[in-house]
Amino acid sequence: MAGLFGGVEGGATHSKAVLLTGDGEVVAEVSGPSTNQWLIGLEQCAERINDMVTKAKEQAGISVTEPLLSLVSPGQRWARGPEGEPRPEHPRVPVTGTQTDNGAGGHGQEVVWFGVTAEKVSDMAPPQILPWTEWLQNHYPHLSDSYFISTDAAGSIATATAHGGVVLISGTGSNCRLVNPDGSEEGCGGWGHLMGDEGSAYWIAHMGVKTVFDTMDNLEVSPHSTDFVKRAMFDYFKVSDRMGLLTHLYRTFDKSNFAGFCQKIAEGACQGDALCHHIFRKAGEVLAKHILAVLPKIQSELFQEPMGLPILCVGSVWNSWELLEEGFVSTLAEGRKIQRAFSKFTLLKLTHSSALGGASLGARVIGRKLPLNYDHTADPFFEHTF
Amino acid sequence: MAGLFGGVEGGATHSKAVLLTGDGEVVAEVSGPSTNQWLIGLEQCAERINDMVTKAKEQAGISVTEPLLSLVSPGQRWARGPEGEPRPEHPRVPVTGTQTDNGAGGHGQEVVWFGVTAEKVSDMAPPQILPWTEWLQNHYPHLSDSYFISTDAAGSIATATAHGGVVLISGTGSNCRLVNPDGSEEGCGGWGHLMGDEGSAYWIAHMGVKTVFDTMDNLEVSPHSTDFVKRAMFDYFKVSDRMGLLTHLYRTFDKSNFAGFCQKIAEGACQGDALCHHIFRKAGEVLAKHILAVLPKIQSELFQEPMGLPILCVGSVWNSWELLEEGFVSTLAEGRKIQRAFSKFTLLKLTHSSALGGASLGARVIGRKLPLNYDHTADPFFEHTF
Repeated sequence: MAGLFGGVEGGATHSKAVLLTGDGEVVAEVSGPSTNQWLIGLEQCAERINDMVTKAKEQAGISVTEPLLSLVSPGQRWARGPEGEPRPEHPRVPVTGTQTDNGAGGHGQEVVWFGVTAEKVSDMAPPQILPWTEWLQNHYPHLSDSYFISTDAAGSIATATAHGGVVLISGTGSNCRLVNPDGSEEGCGGWGHLMGDEGSAYWIAHMGVKTVFDTMDNLEVSPHSTDFVKRAMFDYFKVSDRMGLLTHLYRTFDKSNFAGFCQKIAEGACQGDALCHHIFRKAGEVLAKHILAVLPKIQSELFQEPMGLPILCVGSVWNSWELLEEGFVSTLAEGRKIQRAFSKFTLLKLTHSSALGGASLGARVIGRKLPLNYDHTADPFFEHTF
Repeated sequence: MAGLFGGVEGGATHSKAVLLTGDGEVVAEVSGPSTNQWLIGLEQCAERINDMVTKAKEQAGISVTEPLLSLVSPGQRWARGPEGEPRPEHPRVPVTGTQTDNGAGGHGQEVVWFGVTAEKVSDMAPPQILPWTEWLQNHYPHLSDSYFISTDAAGSIATATAHGGVVLISGTGSNCRLVNPDGSEEGCGGWGHLMGDEGSAYWIAHMGVKTVFDTMDNLEVSPHSTDFVKRAMFDYFKVSDRMGLLTHLYRTFDKSNFAGFCQKIAEGACQGDALCHHIFRKAGEVLAKHILAVLPKIQSELFQEPMGLPILCVGSVWNSWELLEEGFVSTLAEGRKIQRAFSKFTLLKLTHSSALGGASLGARVIGRKLPLNYDHTADPFFEHTF
């Protein structure tokens, strides 16, 4: 094999590394533990990536000392909590995009290589701050000839389409990221449950609970009966009244657990409960608003594909697409007023690891083009023409 | 003196005990440390109350072994965090109201005497669970002949008016409590910042920050310039961008500190900033909605006083009344549609400790009536006739 391209999909609980030939054929795929440097530290993270790639090389039948042509890892963690939620306790940090750009603007903003703060890099390589990729090259000389750090969004989109698109996450939290054909990115949301997360499972669960509280208080009475949601809420949180619920909201607050109540609201909607239906409609609307928010920034090329605007849907809330659809489509119809070229969109789900797209981005950096078979890497589950 | 009546105002940082004659004359007033049993435990709480009352007896010139005729302490802590915020880590708990009602319904709801959980009382007096007041009587036989536990709201209102009213708290958090002429109570809000706190300093600060975030994201663009609030926000939180702010929202979240940003928004409004004005108007509206929420539950007698409906305003946000006024009054005007008798209201602030009102409630329980001079205990700072 005339050189392989590598991609890594990093995650909070597990990771994946893939190796591809120049023809875009996957010749190795290896799973490994978390490569989230916020959780395990940078050195262990590098070690785990090296371990995965070494195993992948063995799987592909090449010498473990033969460097890959390129290796790509995501460096921006904004979309890599459980189900894509941001990890606000470690603020989102901009990634430089290439190994030569050090991005130290001196504006008090942390500089990041592979998500590590300049301070931490500095701890490891004083007195000179080495970019992470250079550091990798020094410590693991056989790993790869070149390195590229991408965002999660870029890797995901590159797995689904050739020219970019929008990633719309709705898991425990929510987030929206536009990746333009020229590689530039724009975002909307992703600020966590106190300042965003609109349309996420947390947000849906919260709207359910809040509607019950406000109706009981006569503060804002729901036009729909709250009986189902109230009962489901007391059942789910194992409490007998609203006071009991306060513990779950404050002292023992667990965002994932709270967001899990979204599932009960989805069940209610499927059983025909009007309030549950209403909440999911609202979630569909506000998720679509994230697309409207980035619409003016979308480069025209993205509207001209046969599928129209590609929207990559990530996170478990999309499993209830039929409940979101009405609110989502009707709100997105407003987009034509913002951008006349916006006449069609397609919703996609990934069927393969975003490490594939990462690898293709790395190839591009060194002037190669990996032909991915997008029919196999992503599933277009809904399309709509206005 | 033919017997004195005592009242205690409990607080998270300090407390007050007052003694009154049967004519309503204050003959002693003593300050003491926190009597919040959530923070210091029940036994120390009782000890501190006994200490304060003993000092007050000395101040009044009666023997410390001569029991008061009655002593009243607030037992419901919902309104007694800093600036009246609920303390959701210790869920609000119903108080039985009299010393004979043990309220143990077996519905999984904690039973409380003086705010202590049944479990804790049980720890102290196994195997029989003693009501708190009985326990007090056993441990401090010279303290008082009778005990009465009131809510904070009841004690506050009884300090300002003879027949009840509405307490509307807007400090760090917010809460609304109706105390009817017959002593019955109804509430709206008070669920903490994740499920309520509308119109509070936290809510105002949050709306300011959220408006900046959403405008920058193009998710929901404010019709008002966000320049002032954005600058003020970066200044106040000492960050240079939104990512920096996430730490204040999550990892190092401090509700009081976050709510403190409300002060900057008030300053902006006073300097004429349109967005700051808009936010306070909205706060006024939503605070008034709390009154509308309890309006159907208000007994008609409360509308017939010369001052109309008395609304006791507690918390620092009311210092910016002129900024709240427009939204508050216009929203409250809707109240006539709900309750035709609602044609006038008066906003009041306490000028004396709510321990006074507490003492008068205790007197009432033993069949006495303490004549308080309400002109001296509360300041009517605004009145409006529709």
